Amino acid sequence: MSAKKNAEVIIGGRVYTLSGYEEEDYLQRVATYINGKLNDLQEMDSFKRLSQDTKATLLELNIADDFFKAKEQIEKQESELEKKEKEIYDLKHDLISYQIKVESLDEQIQNLEAEKKELLLNKSKLEASLEDALLGSLPDIKGEQ
Amino acid sequence: MSAKKNAEVIIGGRVYTLSGYEEEDYLQRVATYINGKLNDLQEMDSFKRLSQDTKATLLELNIADDFFKAKEQIEKQESELEKKEKEIYDLKHDLISYQIKVESLDEQIQNLEAEKKELLLNKSKLEASLEDALLGSLPDIKGEQ
Repeated sequence: MSAKKNAEVIIGGRVYTLSGYEEEDYLQRVATYINGKLNDLQEMDSFKRLSQDTKATLLELNIADDFFKAKEQIEKQESELEKKEKEIYDLKHDLISYQIKVESLDEQIQNLEAEKKELLLNKSKLEASLEDALLGSLPDIKGEQ
Repeated sequence: MSAKKNAEVIIGGRVYTLSGYEEEDYLQRVATYINGKLNDLQEMDSFKRLSQDTKATLLELNIADDFFKAKEQIEKQESELEKKEKEIYDLKHDLISYQIKVESLDEQIQNLEAEKKELLLNKSKLEASLEDALLGSLPDIKGEQ
């Protein structure tokens, strides 16, 4: 963990020296955000009439509301992430089945190609033998036709 | 949008009547969260010695810090979701290529099966013709062998 740092921030017009492990840049962004929230509230006439405590509480409620809304979004995103995780798992599973299917089909094709080659060879041999046989015995064959 | 509702919440020991569109249950959860944050701060001796304003500001800073941390998580999750979206797109693309590949391999197999059938038929015809030819001309064939 990095060392503690001091940072001066202005919130609601007052200067506060914050000591912590956060970077000053981060603390300034948080302070700017709080001042923005405060300005939004101060634009309402009803706010001006409230006590200091109530003003502070309303500001706290508004910031906490942002936090709760963000938490809701985090939960939504978590369930979306789970859904996508599941979808990816299923797609990978399907992909593997297809890969196996393609391998077995490739093998079938190789076997069929080999059988075809064998049959073609066999065919030409038979044709040659038949030709010889026919040439050697035209009259008989003629007779048969 | 639903009608405005009033809800009494206790924050920092004071009762506040909140008027808004949020459900009372939600406002009570937000109040409970703020009180929890306040209790964490009040456990620190240094906090007790602070002015009311500074206490309020520290509480605001702590709540805003939770909000900023939640926003960070939302951003992380958004980029994770994008990554998974991309992965799903690629997997679906690969799956389609495999489907097309399988279809064309199935077609090749059908064609090869047909050719094989044809060749086998052709073979038996040739064998039959050869047998006839040989039976009809044993001497010639013998002579050739």
